[in-house]
Amino acid sequence: MSEKDPLVVFMPSGKRGRVPKGTPVLSAARRLGVDLDSVCGGRGICSKCQVSFGPGSYPKLGLTVAEDALSPWNAVEARYDEKRGLKPGRRLGCQAEILADVVLDVPPESQVHRQVVRKAATLRDIRMDPATRLYFVEVDAPDMHEPSGDLERLNRALAAQWQIGPVEAPLSLLRRLQPVLRKGGFQITVAVHHAHRGPARLIDLWPGLYEGGLYGLAIDLGSTTVAAHLCDLVTGAVIESAGIMNPQIRFGEDLMSRVSYSMMNPGGDVEMTAAVRGAMDALAGEIAATAGIDPRAVVEAVIVCNPVMHHLLLGIDPVELGQAPFALATSGAMDLACSELDLTRMNPAGRLYLLPCIAGHVGADAAAVALSEAPGEQDELTLIVDVGTNAEILLGDRQGVLACSSPTGPAFEGAQISSGQRAAPGAIEAVRIDPVTKIPRFRVIGCDAWSDEPGFDAAITGICGSGIIEALAEMRMAGILDPSGLIGSAEQVGSDRLRPEGRTQAYVLHEDEDRTITVTQGDIRAIQLAKSALYAGARLLMDTRGADKVDRVVLAGAFGAHISPLHAMVLGMIPDVPLDHVTSAGNAAGTGARIALLNRAARAEIEATVTGIHKIETAIEPRFQEHFVAANAMPHAVDPFPELRKIVSLPDVSFNRGGDGADRTRRRRSRAPS
Amino acid sequence: MSEKDPLVVFMPSGKRGRVPKGTPVLSAARRLGVDLDSVCGGRGICSKCQVSFGPGSYPKLGLTVAEDALSPWNAVEARYDEKRGLKPGRRLGCQAEILADVVLDVPPESQVHRQVVRKAATLRDIRMDPATRLYFVEVDAPDMHEPSGDLERLNRALAAQWQIGPVEAPLSLLRRLQPVLRKGGFQITVAVHHAHRGPARLIDLWPGLYEGGLYGLAIDLGSTTVAAHLCDLVTGAVIESAGIMNPQIRFGEDLMSRVSYSMMNPGGDVEMTAAVRGAMDALAGEIAATAGIDPRAVVEAVIVCNPVMHHLLLGIDPVELGQAPFALATSGAMDLACSELDLTRMNPAGRLYLLPCIAGHVGADAAAVALSEAPGEQDELTLIVDVGTNAEILLGDRQGVLACSSPTGPAFEGAQISSGQRAAPGAIEAVRIDPVTKIPRFRVIGCDAWSDEPGFDAAITGICGSGIIEALAEMRMAGILDPSGLIGSAEQVGSDRLRPEGRTQAYVLHEDEDRTITVTQGDIRAIQLAKSALYAGARLLMDTRGADKVDRVVLAGAFGAHISPLHAMVLGMIPDVPLDHVTSAGNAAGTGARIALLNRAARAEIEATVTGIHKIETAIEPRFQEHFVAANAMPHAVDPFPELRKIVSLPDVSFNRGGDGADRTRRRRSRAPS
Repeated sequence: MSEKDPLVVFMPSGKRGRVPKGTPVLSAARRLGVDLDSVCGGRGICSKCQVSFGPGSYPKLGLTVAEDALSPWNAVEARYDEKRGLKPGRRLGCQAEILADVVLDVPPESQVHRQVVRKAATLRDIRMDPATRLYFVEVDAPDMHEPSGDLERLNRALAAQWQIGPVEAPLSLLRRLQPVLRKGGFQITVAVHHAHRGPARLIDLWPGLYEGGLYGLAIDLGSTTVAAHLCDLVTGAVIESAGIMNPQIRFGEDLMSRVSYSMMNPGGDVEMTAAVRGAMDALAGEIAATAGIDPRAVVEAVIVCNPVMHHLLLGIDPVELGQAPFALATSGAMDLACSELDLTRMNPAGRLYLLPCIAGHVGADAAAVALSEAPGEQDELTLIVDVGTNAEILLGDRQGVLACSSPTGPAFEGAQISSGQRAAPGAIEAVRIDPVTKIPRFRVIGCDAWSDEPGFDAAITGICGSGIIEALAEMRMAGILDPSGLIGSAEQVGSDRLRPEGRTQAYVLHEDEDRTITVTQGDIRAIQLAKSALYAGARLLMDTRGADKVDRVVLAGAFGAHISPLHAMVLGMIPDVPLDHVTSAGNAAGTGARIALLNRAARAEIEATVTGIHKIETAIEPRFQEHFVAANAMPHAVDPFPELRKIVSLPDVSFNRGGDGADRTRRRRSRAPS
Repeated sequence: MSEKDPLVVFMPSGKRGRVPKGTPVLSAARRLGVDLDSVCGGRGICSKCQVSFGPGSYPKLGLTVAEDALSPWNAVEARYDEKRGLKPGRRLGCQAEILADVVLDVPPESQVHRQVVRKAATLRDIRMDPATRLYFVEVDAPDMHEPSGDLERLNRALAAQWQIGPVEAPLSLLRRLQPVLRKGGFQITVAVHHAHRGPARLIDLWPGLYEGGLYGLAIDLGSTTVAAHLCDLVTGAVIESAGIMNPQIRFGEDLMSRVSYSMMNPGGDVEMTAAVRGAMDALAGEIAATAGIDPRAVVEAVIVCNPVMHHLLLGIDPVELGQAPFALATSGAMDLACSELDLTRMNPAGRLYLLPCIAGHVGADAAAVALSEAPGEQDELTLIVDVGTNAEILLGDRQGVLACSSPTGPAFEGAQISSGQRAAPGAIEAVRIDPVTKIPRFRVIGCDAWSDEPGFDAAITGICGSGIIEALAEMRMAGILDPSGLIGSAEQVGSDRLRPEGRTQAYVLHEDEDRTITVTQGDIRAIQLAKSALYAGARLLMDTRGADKVDRVVLAGAFGAHISPLHAMVLGMIPDVPLDHVTSAGNAAGTGARIALLNRAARAEIEATVTGIHKIETAIEPRFQEHFVAANAMPHAVDPFPELRKIVSLPDVSFNRGGDGADRTRRRRSRAPS
């Protein structure tokens, strides 16, 4: 390029260079590596390559752009504007030619690899690079002198016009290829899936230029619920979200009872497979219908789930996952056709991607959390806990990542709690107890006001996971509960909120004509078991890493979004860190699924990451048992929790009537290292 | 290796080399590149690596082999002999160690790449190299400290123990992997399909050592019949053959009527697809049952067929093949799972391979003929004709190969002939006419004697394709038929075998109380049209090649096996060559299917060959019409047929009452070049 050639600057990338006068904008963009979309390949019909052109002075760039820096509208551009309309200042990049120095803005909708912004500042945005893309091609008509097949000529066109392929075509599409080619006068649009490994595949085809969108589903297949986000594969936007109950619940509430069902009932796994596939299919159909989208346009799904759901979805009996050594049939990522999982209410030739599993207890959902939260890219040592029936725990920084699963049981979800219930309207979700009067106030799902505020009028039905955690922590802070987990009597605490229940005590949280909601000694024990398992798992990873403390704690999962970091730390669920270093990542597994859906490089990335994650099996680590016992106290028998003690003071009470001395000894020991 | 190391010579390859004393025979074979089989990988259980050991003097090799040149039987060999028995002189190659100079014979059954001998001396033998093979592997048991999936550990074992993989596993096998591995104590046998392109795939798996065989089907899917050979994928032997009628006949006798059926009846192609898939499935089940083989052991099929059957089998509407430009949906080879074509009575994960099509009129069957007959590897210019409803014609030598299809119609198969019938008992299949008395004698299918011999007692029902060709040629040689194709009258010929039929004559071949079998003028015209098309196609290829004659003619197809070369040449069906240069290749398409089944390199070979074949479309070549007209005369209006005239004299008769002069002129012209 000589100095006489016009200079073109593309914004927002700032990429610049000189091109020969008369070069179309799209060609210039390609030459300079500027991300400018095109489906029709420069034929002036798809309008994906639009740029904004504004004559005038650009002092920062040292440029003045003349009115005639681009060629005048040609017939193609004029026809497009007449039929569809172009916004003011917009030009079709494939038609407008560069005649003089010019500054052009590539609007977000014209970028293939636009960024999808994620909220948390610590996290990378998602770079759009979906596996399935549209290509408009002009295929040579058949010629008796050169009798190649239509598919072969399509592949020749894709190679010549788009430098991709050859594509493999499933029989269902081969069947449609000839009529569609002829209907479109040998001009067609194809959707091609570029797997990050394996061949490119034809997913669908339309006569002429297809102007509809392409969509994908990010599915978080949980033991209890199945949640799906319908995403636009061009913009990355979430178009619609929906969730349904996992119908496998009728075979067992938790995973292990489903494994047992399969063990006890020959063919039980087949029933459960059919149930979950049917539910996913229904969900896919429903979400497309709600969004008003042709199910055929839904061409991909990414699924994350725990190992038992993973096997049941694939049609593999999960029996080995119910017993040591918890062997997975396959731990690798899966790339399948929708039809292989009997999904009929999205594009039948569409592709499914399942993230890899980390271990027999640490599934593709944990891998998705790792993809979303990227512990291996953090400078700070980060602990990520995804609390469900099992807690998946990741610990890592740039030095490496460790993972384990810990059997917390369902207490954190409100199960095994005397007044426990799922997080639904009527459930107490937040609790405060006055340390002097020992009188509680609370907030109930479905009502914004606290129970002592005007406007509170909720019907109270029970207590959910976050509510029980806050209740216990508040009881501990109010001196109602001692460090060992014993509830004091009315006499010991000095409040008639305490009532004997057999040989133990219960704390009355709420009482009306319909029901009395108490926290019982049994509830305390259930939460203690759960939190001990969680803390012991985290501690085991810290031991393996040789770390005495972590820099940051991330609470993932729907539960993580509702938990109060302060209360969790009072209970000793999580290791001691400054409170503002505890963050919620929301549904990080679902986010991981969305990342893998929108960016195919992320699939290769998580597959590589997973092989590098060091797995710890809690069930066979003798130290797990030690950590579990020590974590029984609230917050902990040995670990000092200095950050926590900076902000709250925990009353030094003991309600052990029989063995006061022993109890004091233990508390003394627990304070020794501080 | 030093001179002190023992020398080992493997027969029949003659490969030799020195190996350290104590080297197991199997290891020595691998080191020297000797083809010695093993399924168990040297564990002394599969016995595939047997060698023959004979002490004594080998003067030609300059060696004397001592009794103790191999180590004595060890416990593994002794146990094998006790349980299964070893033939005298046989040793297990993985157990016997080389202690001194030794000559070892590798029996055919111990060779992986044994040769399957083909009869014709001009043809290469088939080298065994099947795509699907068995591997016995010991897989690591799962380990909680290294929680990889069972499939991943299987792949690790295949890589370490066999240097293959990783294999992809369909969900149906992934489902069976865990129980089979555990049943076999983590020792299993897997059948792996090594595609000549694409990934290796798991086809089946068995606990422990699987001692059954692996089989494949070579299927010739014709318009009228479906023929299948069940082949042993280890020895290459044809175990069983069977054929059934193509049930699509009910939609139309010939291909074009089936294409019409599809055009006229929406969904007609779907019906026809279901019919042919069902028939193939039934045939696969039947042939395995007859052979007493577990259908699961049938793990591969190679299918050859014409383009219309190809599309109908794949579920593609063949409508485009019924009209110019005869565009195929795909011309490439297809590699599919059995389940994709609804084949359930062989291994469900088994693989199907369809040879590529050459053009819209020249199908995978012609490609299979090219694979079997290898015209491109001949030093002599070879013409191959595969006669059916369409004749496929190949012409080539090392310089290149040409192909076309010519619309002969069904006359050669006995259709459109007044007394015509299929080749079945009762059909006249051979005819001789006494040139003096004009009295015929003939042979009938189902009876070995000629009609004038004692012991002839056949019920005569009609005349088949080879019979009508011989009848016409004999009539021509006996002076009953003139070169233009006119039958003489009783008076002109001097025989009461000639009878008027309207304005033309008919020749009585046979008469009894039940029926009179004649050759009519209409029959002559039908055969003339067919033979003119065949000859014109061949001549068009010769023109394109710039050749005035060919060196060799190969008649392929079931019909080719029954045709008399002399008679075919008298009619001018094929170009003039010395009679002993006309050979029959039998069912060359079926043989091509068998080659592709047994040798996967042949698949890559034919795919490359097909792209190099130059296709001629007869329908748009103006010279085809010229050649067609000139070929109407018998043997030909212009071409001199000098080789034919060396062995037969063709009477110079003319029965054209109206235009005698014109007729003579034509005959004079026809003799001019000779």
